[in-house]
Amino acid sequence: MSEQKRTVFYLSDRTGITAETLGHSLLTQFDNITWETVNAPFLDSVEKAGAVREQIDRAAERDGCRPLVFSTLLRPEILEVIKQADCRIFDFFETFIRSIEEELHQPFARMAGRSHGLQHHLSYFKRIAAINYVLAHDDGVNPRNFDAAEIILTGVSRSGKTPTCLYLGLQYGIAAANYPLTPDDMRANQAATLPEVLQPVKAKLFGLTLSAAQLHFIRSERRPGSQYASLAQCAQEIEWQESLFQRYYIPFLDTTRISIEEISAIILNRSGLKRRLYG
Amino acid sequence: MSEQKRTVFYLSDRTGITAETLGHSLLTQFDNITWETVNAPFLDSVEKAGAVREQIDRAAERDGCRPLVFSTLLRPEILEVIKQADCRIFDFFETFIRSIEEELHQPFARMAGRSHGLQHHLSYFKRIAAINYVLAHDDGVNPRNFDAAEIILTGVSRSGKTPTCLYLGLQYGIAAANYPLTPDDMRANQAATLPEVLQPVKAKLFGLTLSAAQLHFIRSERRPGSQYASLAQCAQEIEWQESLFQRYYIPFLDTTRISIEEISAIILNRSGLKRRLYG
Repeated sequence: MSEQKRTVFYLSDRTGITAETLGHSLLTQFDNITWETVNAPFLDSVEKAGAVREQIDRAAERDGCRPLVFSTLLRPEILEVIKQADCRIFDFFETFIRSIEEELHQPFARMAGRSHGLQHHLSYFKRIAAINYVLAHDDGVNPRNFDAAEIILTGVSRSGKTPTCLYLGLQYGIAAANYPLTPDDMRANQAATLPEVLQPVKAKLFGLTLSAAQLHFIRSERRPGSQYASLAQCAQEIEWQESLFQRYYIPFLDTTRISIEEISAIILNRSGLKRRLYG
Repeated sequence: MSEQKRTVFYLSDRTGITAETLGHSLLTQFDNITWETVNAPFLDSVEKAGAVREQIDRAAERDGCRPLVFSTLLRPEILEVIKQADCRIFDFFETFIRSIEEELHQPFARMAGRSHGLQHHLSYFKRIAAINYVLAHDDGVNPRNFDAAEIILTGVSRSGKTPTCLYLGLQYGIAAANYPLTPDDMRANQAATLPEVLQPVKAKLFGLTLSAAQLHFIRSERRPGSQYASLAQCAQEIEWQESLFQRYYIPFLDTTRISIEEISAIILNRSGLKRRLYG
């Protein structure tokens, strides 16, 4: 099938995060299309809508086919303007809101920004506290405070511990610590003994592993040509840490082909931590 | 209106992020309902679906009314099991995918995990690089490297710089630095002069401000009863920084009642930085 070029617009009264998340999950189901993406967040006046309408029409003319428009717009007078453009609109609110009204026996509030905004005043503090915890306990710092950790990620250098901890903190408000497994740990105990500081908190540990080839690639970006980045060293460290995880029954995950979002969701699912999705 | 108690289920083949985003943005439009939330991610077998079906039926009995179910399930045989439960299903894929197929003249791939998973292999490295940049340039560290920053957030202590930078890095892959405005800066120049190190990078600056009352509240969590946390000190610092932002035409945002997601989206929108939503 030949490559199509299409334009997609994400329209929202507020951040546009919902429209983008939903549209993206639908469009990734289609191959062989090159997408030109236009974000129009904070679309809160008829004048702004008029400008977007023109932009849509220009894209339709340029592409030779009408753009797809994903909308979470709440105000009918703004949506009306967009409907006059040459496009196919997928309206996330109108599509579902009537059936939900029916089910809940009440009209919806038609107030923008409830999802990512005002309501989250309290969760803000919880998330900030979690981020502060993650930063204060990154890379094995302050292991004496591991009692307060909800989870402790472990793995060799560049196995993805820090970004995953930050994501768990920001998105789910979870106090996530991490502890690096080092070549010193490995050399000190070929028999794969868990570092002493981790033994009292073993139940909170979760291991991150990946293919030696990917670790080699990631480390080479940082220190090209080094012993640290060599494929042989990477393979040895990975083999050692996986045998450690297995020996101590530490749950672990191969992150080679998955995103930070997926890694985080899988960790929450397997460890039984309560999910609290914010944002 | 009296308070309703209802249960909502989020069902997905993979992380459940899309289902939760959709359901959450719809349900926040309704007041006076206490929601019991059940997440069932990685629902990838008929057996697991059977267990969820029973869970839905129990919730329906307990609540005295049927649960709402938001689904991004792709496999019909799994959805079939759920449809036998006592619930109202909002099926995100089925609702939209046919019209998109029609519009794009091709069938969808019906492959789970495309949105938050496999496809993001390359963006992974970009996001990790951005996070490393944020961590290496937090709180005014390494101001000589500000050349590489795409944006530099500034504001007084606890104005939300670090979490916002981390969110910009994780969610959008943006290299965001931050630089704190301190009481020393304030005392040294009552006339509100921009700290010298920021002058060459003025065009990249974005200010974060908030109400003195909220700053007082946040600082009091950290150092209760201190001069640092006093309302008078907070009010003085806020007044000073806002006059600084105004004097130098630095765009700034009052973050008092908005979430990290909104702060980030507004900053991107105002600064004209290219959005690249991942995840």
